[in-house]
Amino acid sequence: MITVNDRTYNLPQGPVVGICMDGTSFDYYEAAKDLMPNLQRFIREGSMGMVHSVVPSFTNPNNMAMVTGAPPSVNGICGNYYYDKALDAEVMMNDPRYLRAPSILASLSQQGKRIAVVTVKDKLRAMLAHGLAGGVCFSAEFADRVTTELNGIENVEGTLMGRPQPGIYDPGISVYCIEAGARLLAREPFDLMYLTTTDFVQHKYAPGHPEANAFLAAIDQWLGELDRLGAIVGVTADHGMNDKTQADGSPNVRYAESILADHGIPSRVILPITDPYVVHHGALGSYGTVYLAEDEVTRAREILSEVPGFEKVLSRDEAAAAFHLPPDRIGELVILSDRSTVIGRTAAWHDLSVVAEGLRSHGGLHEAVVPMIFNRPLAPAYAERLATGTSRNYDLFDYLLNGIA
Amino acid sequence: MITVNDRTYNLPQGPVVGICMDGTSFDYYEAAKDLMPNLQRFIREGSMGMVHSVVPSFTNPNNMAMVTGAPPSVNGICGNYYYDKALDAEVMMNDPRYLRAPSILASLSQQGKRIAVVTVKDKLRAMLAHGLAGGVCFSAEFADRVTTELNGIENVEGTLMGRPQPGIYDPGISVYCIEAGARLLAREPFDLMYLTTTDFVQHKYAPGHPEANAFLAAIDQWLGELDRLGAIVGVTADHGMNDKTQADGSPNVRYAESILADHGIPSRVILPITDPYVVHHGALGSYGTVYLAEDEVTRAREILSEVPGFEKVLSRDEAAAAFHLPPDRIGELVILSDRSTVIGRTAAWHDLSVVAEGLRSHGGLHEAVVPMIFNRPLAPAYAERLATGTSRNYDLFDYLLNGIA
Repeated sequence: MITVNDRTYNLPQGPVVGICMDGTSFDYYEAAKDLMPNLQRFIREGSMGMVHSVVPSFTNPNNMAMVTGAPPSVNGICGNYYYDKALDAEVMMNDPRYLRAPSILASLSQQGKRIAVVTVKDKLRAMLAHGLAGGVCFSAEFADRVTTELNGIENVEGTLMGRPQPGIYDPGISVYCIEAGARLLAREPFDLMYLTTTDFVQHKYAPGHPEANAFLAAIDQWLGELDRLGAIVGVTADHGMNDKTQADGSPNVRYAESILADHGIPSRVILPITDPYVVHHGALGSYGTVYLAEDEVTRAREILSEVPGFEKVLSRDEAAAAFHLPPDRIGELVILSDRSTVIGRTAAWHDLSVVAEGLRSHGGLHEAVVPMIFNRPLAPAYAERLATGTSRNYDLFDYLLNGIA
Repeated sequence: MITVNDRTYNLPQGPVVGICMDGTSFDYYEAAKDLMPNLQRFIREGSMGMVHSVVPSFTNPNNMAMVTGAPPSVNGICGNYYYDKALDAEVMMNDPRYLRAPSILASLSQQGKRIAVVTVKDKLRAMLAHGLAGGVCFSAEFADRVTTELNGIENVEGTLMGRPQPGIYDPGISVYCIEAGARLLAREPFDLMYLTTTDFVQHKYAPGHPEANAFLAAIDQWLGELDRLGAIVGVTADHGMNDKTQADGSPNVRYAESILADHGIPSRVILPITDPYVVHHGALGSYGTVYLAEDEVTRAREILSEVPGFEKVLSRDEAAAAFHLPPDRIGELVILSDRSTVIGRTAAWHDLSVVAEGLRSHGGLHEAVVPMIFNRPLAPAYAERLATGTSRNYDLFDYLLNGIA
């Protein structure tokens, strides 16, 4: 057994595969169920329940919560993007120096377990690889530039996959990720894998759209292959996805920094959904945090609380306590917008042309309930926890390592 | 403080009102948000989160869980309808003799607190009233026949409401229920109230339908009135609701008893959604339990597991452990159907004419995540529990009595 971040895990006894299907709420699986025989079999013969994600319901906080088994208050990762006060700079939160806790992956690796990590987005790679003592860790995005030194593998395109990776906005890139996991496992008996996709499809297409269904059908084949290879497989998500569009098809956005400026309050609004892949969402999500002068906090809170679609405006302390966030890494206020509304900074800051065809996004409470599915039955105590809906997506490895019947 | 079913509650210090909005998933509030200024204010200035219901996600189990603060394994109520082995009869599970635990309402009442309960459906009244030492408890359904002796009130139609109750299939009957709560509170300083509606509207209309929106707008006025009267108000739901219709509009039903009979296995399939109000749903829901001979259990489980749309077939012990159900009150097997499928008994047993215009129903895991909303901020520990999605709807009175800031 090992203990990581005050939680204890059994060592893997056979291949264990944790999968984060980025942005995949249950609705997607429901609509594609006739095309996903393997996932359907997991649900029927294995286990399924609904779990809560980390809020902000964004990619980096949830991925890092899953691999550390701990929330942002412990692991430090509270956004994809962040205002580094010490640097006085807005930076991507994708550098291992922001990590405040070891990962389960790293700890198992240091115990001599063979680990493989495949992420679609390279932005996650360095943090996921942090502390690994050997093993494989690469991004599908940069599959063409892997090195043994950096990634523990070479020639992914050639030897492993037999083809170059698709583009980052091609649905096939996530399939490539899960396929790579299955091909790695077929080649070598890894003890534990973590596979994490990208949500371009879910941002672009609603559940049941032929493109979404075709994507999930392709994913399903590789889920089946992982199962066939004898792996214990767990599938969850970092967040769900909701339509955030007005009746005319334009994004339903409120520009928080502009609203405060209109009231004479200077502020810096950080939108932690921001990442290098803006075509997904135009940096518009349902969670934002506001840096401003202490003596303006009360008035700013009142103003923001009145904005239609801003569901909740919390103080730093309230947000940190309620959502298990690191108080030193969020602003004076936290805004959560409602199911159909996103938070912008200023109109000029966003390129709305990328979301001209509609906006589906996430970040708030309404994208925080996601499925967790295993290809095996669970031990009674875990079956109970999953059935009663009191687990989090970052309990994934607790279930996989401690909870399988 | 009082202790009820091993949980401790502070005594109410001012009026406290718990509301079960039957069948109301968050989607309904989202679609009606412009028509629900009071609920929107609760969300903005008070508290909101997503909680898990009891599964089976039916009315009686969830209402009795809320008022006892305990799951069916403790309170005994695992359906609206049930096979009483001792009687060898299928009966409505609405008699207090089925209750195995005292309610919070009864315990507070016995401490001298003044309690009022208004239920739309009379089927719940006797169980909700059980153990009350005085107070008021009546159903809107039978508002015209209240007596001081039975209900602790007289002339509801005349003195309290000024009009007769609407019919049981009139959306106004649920408004009448919440309105009655507000009128009672305006008249007399009750310590605690429990108000529980009916889900005819939600069975019939999807979120955003003008009828659903108009219904919720009317409810909202009375939520505002309860707030204005100084009550601490908590609003949750017994379950959500999903469309269970095939492409041609007919119910997407699988007849479990017939399927087993076709394989030569005699069985009794109990559909605990069954209640006297069949126009809602034709007794078709996403949870069923199967009584059959022990030596047929393994084969029956295999057969039922292969039925498309039957998401999960569990043994009695598995289901009882996972969902906190009383094992002596469920059959040898429990079936959960998927988001779009309902479980039937035999074709002859159901009157599908009542759902000819479509079927929206509930009972399974996919209707088990519901909102919980308070008109007040929560103390930090409760804010955290609500924000991290690890509570159940039957924590309602724990939140209301112990968790308000």
